[in-house]
Amino acid sequence: MAAVESAGGGSNGIGPAASAQTDAQAPSRIRAPQALFGLTPSVEAAVLAAVEADRPGQIRGLVLPLHSADVADLLERLDDEQRRRVVEAIRRRFDPEILSHLDDSVRELVVEILGAQDVAAAVSELDTDDAVDLVEDLDDDIRQRVLAALPAAERVLVEQGLTFPEESAGRLMRREVVAIPQGWTVGQTIDFMRTSQALPDDFTELFIIDATRRLVGMVALNRLLRTNRPVRVIDMMAADFRSITPATDREEVAFLFRQYGLVSAPVVDEAGQLLGVITVDDVVTVIEEETEEDLMRLSGVGDADIYAPPTETARQRFRWLVATLVNAVIASTVISQFEASIQQIVALAVLMPIVAAMGGNAGMQVVTVVVRALATKNLTAANAWRMVGKELAVGGINGVVFALILGTLAGVWFASPGIGLVLAGAMVFNMAWAGLAGTVIPLTLARFGMDPAIGAGPFLTTTTDVLGFFSFLGLATLFLL
Amino acid sequence: MAAVESAGGGSNGIGPAASAQTDAQAPSRIRAPQALFGLTPSVEAAVLAAVEADRPGQIRGLVLPLHSADVADLLERLDDEQRRRVVEAIRRRFDPEILSHLDDSVRELVVEILGAQDVAAAVSELDTDDAVDLVEDLDDDIRQRVLAALPAAERVLVEQGLTFPEESAGRLMRREVVAIPQGWTVGQTIDFMRTSQALPDDFTELFIIDATRRLVGMVALNRLLRTNRPVRVIDMMAADFRSITPATDREEVAFLFRQYGLVSAPVVDEAGQLLGVITVDDVVTVIEEETEEDLMRLSGVGDADIYAPPTETARQRFRWLVATLVNAVIASTVISQFEASIQQIVALAVLMPIVAAMGGNAGMQVVTVVVRALATKNLTAANAWRMVGKELAVGGINGVVFALILGTLAGVWFASPGIGLVLAGAMVFNMAWAGLAGTVIPLTLARFGMDPAIGAGPFLTTTTDVLGFFSFLGLATLFLL
Repeated sequence: MAAVESAGGGSNGIGPAASAQTDAQAPSRIRAPQALFGLTPSVEAAVLAAVEADRPGQIRGLVLPLHSADVADLLERLDDEQRRRVVEAIRRRFDPEILSHLDDSVRELVVEILGAQDVAAAVSELDTDDAVDLVEDLDDDIRQRVLAALPAAERVLVEQGLTFPEESAGRLMRREVVAIPQGWTVGQTIDFMRTSQALPDDFTELFIIDATRRLVGMVALNRLLRTNRPVRVIDMMAADFRSITPATDREEVAFLFRQYGLVSAPVVDEAGQLLGVITVDDVVTVIEEETEEDLMRLSGVGDADIYAPPTETARQRFRWLVATLVNAVIASTVISQFEASIQQIVALAVLMPIVAAMGGNAGMQVVTVVVRALATKNLTAANAWRMVGKELAVGGINGVVFALILGTLAGVWFASPGIGLVLAGAMVFNMAWAGLAGTVIPLTLARFGMDPAIGAGPFLTTTTDVLGFFSFLGLATLFLL
Repeated sequence: MAAVESAGGGSNGIGPAASAQTDAQAPSRIRAPQALFGLTPSVEAAVLAAVEADRPGQIRGLVLPLHSADVADLLERLDDEQRRRVVEAIRRRFDPEILSHLDDSVRELVVEILGAQDVAAAVSELDTDDAVDLVEDLDDDIRQRVLAALPAAERVLVEQGLTFPEESAGRLMRREVVAIPQGWTVGQTIDFMRTSQALPDDFTELFIIDATRRLVGMVALNRLLRTNRPVRVIDMMAADFRSITPATDREEVAFLFRQYGLVSAPVVDEAGQLLGVITVDDVVTVIEEETEEDLMRLSGVGDADIYAPPTETARQRFRWLVATLVNAVIASTVISQFEASIQQIVALAVLMPIVAAMGGNAGMQVVTVVVRALATKNLTAANAWRMVGKELAVGGINGVVFALILGTLAGVWFASPGIGLVLAGAMVFNMAWAGLAGTVIPLTLARFGMDPAIGAGPFLTTTTDVLGFFSFLGLATLFLL
């Protein structure tokens, strides 16, 4: 805040006093900002009505003013026939950006409606990163037709983009950048920008390159604007930029942007030559997807595409349910060892699920925290053991608390202090174990290069179930029979 | 891509041919970009060694070149005594930004070490949004002392910031903006920027205001640079900007940035007057936190602060475990209704956990997908019923598949086709129910304005457990006894 005025609050903010200017009227093209907030339910309902009545003109009137991201949302929520009507209605003025915003399964359907020729026309208007993203998901035959229909120069770029590994920085980067020779002055640069016809639509910085196209620095546009024309760009550029190689994993890219609050970052090859730029709007999507991926994997949801058909979704969830089944069957075999005890004291069968549920849920709390701490690099070799110790302590504390609650409850319920004591003992043991296993299992998986979000859950529940049943039924067999 | 050249790939990219320039040498201040990637394990180890040896000079040499976000990570991973040594070593050149990057519980400790005077000095150098964020988390007494030590103008801004609701746009916004009267030309604007001493460190757009400070448009800096000096800003500005009110929930703000790929957005009051700006770097944090919040809530982790002491963490997890306990006890009372059946066929006790585990996990897959679809606004009134139908179908499909697998398995295991049939029947019923309840419960919670991520899990597992045990034990009692 130092030495900076602020907007509002009685001051006139940075910039000359606004009141010194007199402007009779705001121009008529200014729209109320409120009208621009997403797809309102009333607009959605009006579109649905126009679609039902099959009035293409009305559909166009409603849909064309919307932002491409909102049109994409709308198309996702429609059923097949409704979607076809909307796409046909807006086909001739179809905004290519809509395709970039669509979920995979709906995009496939829209591409089918549009046909290869129209899709190629759309691709040629997109930035390279969006174009590559779109083309890579197409079915082989339509992809070939779309590529064939592209102008040669653009086809080369898209095909180059496809050579980078999926989920890599190379796929995220836009090839359109503004690169300025290091010998130029601020004045030369501004004059060039005023006359050039080939600049990207939107950018926030210039890249400074040497004679061999090696990246030597970056200049934020606000710096350029604040500097006098005779100054050389090399004397005002930031040379401590963070650059990314095309093979960098996109999760790593997301970490860099988040950690350092970047708005954009250059991508360079091994020789340090500038290849392209990654911008924060693409990274926002990655950050959300990566966090969501952890969530989906921890719950065993293979792919979160809610528009996929039921059979596809059932298939994706199958693996996780098989893991659950294997876990449950293992737990069952433990129980079957104690059939004789259960026959004598049926109360054991009644209380069994409590031990398993408490241990499993306490353990999943720990796994969730550890998985996220690993993903955000808050958990490293430096503090791993401290974390294990802490979670063991947390498990112990809550174990004792719930042992008291549940031991009393069970002792009173079945009028048997023995059952209460056995349940209490199993509870302390199982919840302390949940704390220990909840940290050690994901840490071990990560250590061996596996994704802790995928494997940790089933591993953990198997151990808490098995040990929970074993300790509870075992203690009961030892002391109550 | 249309009409835009690209970097690399044989072309010289946008901008004049780089080879036309000859520059003998890159300036010496250019550092290898690789050195700037996060906190490397070797740097971390070196810092730890210097801390153990208690060498403040060496600590300074290692820590001061790091980015503030990396210093924050380092401080988070140290124990109390190590942290004190590092803070003392760098106290005189302590970067205020470090405080913004610290997790709450560690920040409290660092603030304690620094003392009110040094914290106030740090706060006065931060942007308003970071300053408010820091001050709001301070304990009452130190907050009063920090506020008292601030210059009056800054104290007013921070206190104003604190009046906005937590998690609102008002808390996220920076008050420092660059506002330009609508009557100005591009030339006047550039001249003003070259001479003004009071501009924010970094910005990507100008706000255009009328005589009453009402916001009438925005100009991206790259547009300004591409336009000739005599053009009036009002004739080139974007008037279809999206503005936000200070009371807007930060989740809504995150949605807007993500949906429309925004880099910044103005905050205006009811009269349309410009109050401040929200930038994408703050929103990146919000997007990650909101997604992570869903994850943490679904797993019942109250607060993901891994640096909180064990007693605090145990307390935060307690509520969820109580919910688990209540759920488990309800399930147990269902089982207890069938004690006689279990005593006759102990196999029932052995197989019970399988029914509960399959239904619970299948249901949590659905809840997870629905919670995220609601959060990302992919699920609205328009497609809610389609989603319910789809998940019911998915549950039915997987229910039949697992009924076949498990029915056969159980029939063979206990050499009883009857047990196999009963288990298969309970499985189909329970997994179809999981699909139905997994959608309807979070949708209902959301409908009544509650957070589906908090309540849906326990609600769901209670129903799948109760119905799972009831259907399995009930069918067994009906047909096997």
